[in-house]
Amino acid sequence: MTPLKNDIFIKALLKQPIDRTPVWMMRQAGRYLPEYRQIREQAGSFLNLCTNPELACEVTLQPLRRFDFDAAILFSDILTIPDAMGLGLYFTEGEGPKFKKTVRTAADVKQLPIPDPHEDLRYVVDAVSLIRKNLQGSVPLIGFSGSPWTLATYMVEGGGSKSFQKVKGLMYEQPAVMHLMLDKLAQSVAAYLNAQIEAGAQAVMLFDTWGGMLSSEDYIEFSLHYAKQVRALLKTDGDGQRIPTILFTKGGGLWLETMAEAGYDALGLDWQTDIGQARARVGDRVALQGNMDPVSLYAQPAIIVEKVKTVLAKYGPGSGHVFNLGHGILPDINPDHVKAMVDAVHQYSPAYHL
Amino acid sequence: MTPLKNDIFIKALLKQPIDRTPVWMMRQAGRYLPEYRQIREQAGSFLNLCTNPELACEVTLQPLRRFDFDAAILFSDILTIPDAMGLGLYFTEGEGPKFKKTVRTAADVKQLPIPDPHEDLRYVVDAVSLIRKNLQGSVPLIGFSGSPWTLATYMVEGGGSKSFQKVKGLMYEQPAVMHLMLDKLAQSVAAYLNAQIEAGAQAVMLFDTWGGMLSSEDYIEFSLHYAKQVRALLKTDGDGQRIPTILFTKGGGLWLETMAEAGYDALGLDWQTDIGQARARVGDRVALQGNMDPVSLYAQPAIIVEKVKTVLAKYGPGSGHVFNLGHGILPDINPDHVKAMVDAVHQYSPAYHL
Repeated sequence: MTPLKNDIFIKALLKQPIDRTPVWMMRQAGRYLPEYRQIREQAGSFLNLCTNPELACEVTLQPLRRFDFDAAILFSDILTIPDAMGLGLYFTEGEGPKFKKTVRTAADVKQLPIPDPHEDLRYVVDAVSLIRKNLQGSVPLIGFSGSPWTLATYMVEGGGSKSFQKVKGLMYEQPAVMHLMLDKLAQSVAAYLNAQIEAGAQAVMLFDTWGGMLSSEDYIEFSLHYAKQVRALLKTDGDGQRIPTILFTKGGGLWLETMAEAGYDALGLDWQTDIGQARARVGDRVALQGNMDPVSLYAQPAIIVEKVKTVLAKYGPGSGHVFNLGHGILPDINPDHVKAMVDAVHQYSPAYHL
Repeated sequence: MTPLKNDIFIKALLKQPIDRTPVWMMRQAGRYLPEYRQIREQAGSFLNLCTNPELACEVTLQPLRRFDFDAAILFSDILTIPDAMGLGLYFTEGEGPKFKKTVRTAADVKQLPIPDPHEDLRYVVDAVSLIRKNLQGSVPLIGFSGSPWTLATYMVEGGGSKSFQKVKGLMYEQPAVMHLMLDKLAQSVAAYLNAQIEAGAQAVMLFDTWGGMLSSEDYIEFSLHYAKQVRALLKTDGDGQRIPTILFTKGGGLWLETMAEAGYDALGLDWQTDIGQARARVGDRVALQGNMDPVSLYAQPAIIVEKVKTVLAKYGPGSGHVFNLGHGILPDINPDHVKAMVDAVHQYSPAYHL
């Protein structure tokens, strides 16, 4: 495969010297871009877009044509694995993802298959190959998956949730069933990410969107333990290159020290966490990714520039920082404001890499 | 006034020796109780219930007839102040609180009055007097208010919010306007809490429900600063007794060290925060209140007992802990499960006070 022309994202994750801070954005391929909305309409549905490798490739590349991002991220959904397990993922307008079948009993869990990514998630693997080829080595491609715990929340609840009553109920009342389910999910996630790595993903990220809804002890037992298990099963090299890994737990700022021991190269930070304090807490063990408040992109460009400068200054000098938002970009942000953010990272970060 | 028969709640907040850990529950007067639902129906609306001192008194006392709680908390809403400022609070089924008028410009903020609690919030002051009288010194009465930042979020957004786009927009774009608004709110909250203290509240709690949606630096500048200002304006004594104060920021676990310097006697903890680690971080500066996961009350009583034991063991020996949930009780919890929790605190906490 073509060698990378711009590898500062990979180098930052591995804390190797670079000359400026790399930048990309969670949900950078998304609704804030008119060209995305056009393809989305053409596809007819969000799921059609995810399951069509050509369209998924096209929307993955769109933001890179507009902005000087240092990484591409596979366009997909975090719930592809439960769908491949046969739960029947669907989306209803304004209500988010839902499943036709739920997983709530020991029998349900025992019946869950571990999907073969090359068969059951072929559309994702094909999208990764196609995107990697089309990137032509310009920037690295990030593969991703939802974390075992986060996938389990949707599978038990049957969709999104506010209080997570059903999944926590299963966790409290039948912890062995919950552990069996999470173990199957960890194996499935690892196989899925390994297939993405084989197909060309040059870094992988685990999204633990709902780990932050757990108590400290439940987080360690039911979420982080399985993130570690995934990490232990991951390929460390792809195409002869080291594959860096990122763990992002939204609301996980309290647990960074423990997360830093989970084997990942980097931790994603939400915007509530002070990135300077986070760096002091994790030391040299991991790189950090984040963490501007996504809502600050509504502000005028001059204010956005100040917010970028604050995040860069808080992280401070040296490699090990990937600039990002603290969560996905919101769907109605003005693309010019994204440009202001990206340009500010380009302009003000070299001072931290002298 | 009658001296307190049970003052362990007050003593725990002041870290004075006691023989067991006190317990109460956020939203203990609420929908999980059939007798509450009956009065609520009789009142016709939630607001009618809040604004009628006799009914507010009745629902405040209901949980104390069922459970051995060590404190009563005024039944009211956190949004009474903006309503008294003329914004027109109303509730729509399933959608939460809304305001008829919003506050979004410098002119809007300049026009905001500082309500006189004895005039504009008379129904609350009267409810406090009535509850205090009816408690007959059995347990102390907690008064409360929403925090300036949390009130501001509803006033700018016009109701609840997911991304807090409008209030953060005002904060980023016109920080001086936001500060003027928060300053007026701090004055209003302090006057309101002082009126509650004068009417008989024996402790006060500030609910900062949405402080945890801010970045660290914004939390300190726009939320904690005004919580401090409120504290500085509060009466320290009522009826010759010291009035302890509690600050609760949901999602504030990252900032406990700074919060411990704000002048409050105790910090409320959400369930994500490890209460043992929190105690190590704040040392002797403040007491701690919390923090069992509210969702664990769905589990069977035997499991609830284990969860109570875990929280007690994590806090460890000595005074300075008030047992509570990490957030309000959920509306469909079985009251028998609450009894299991309260009884477990009574049974297992004396070992930590030898």
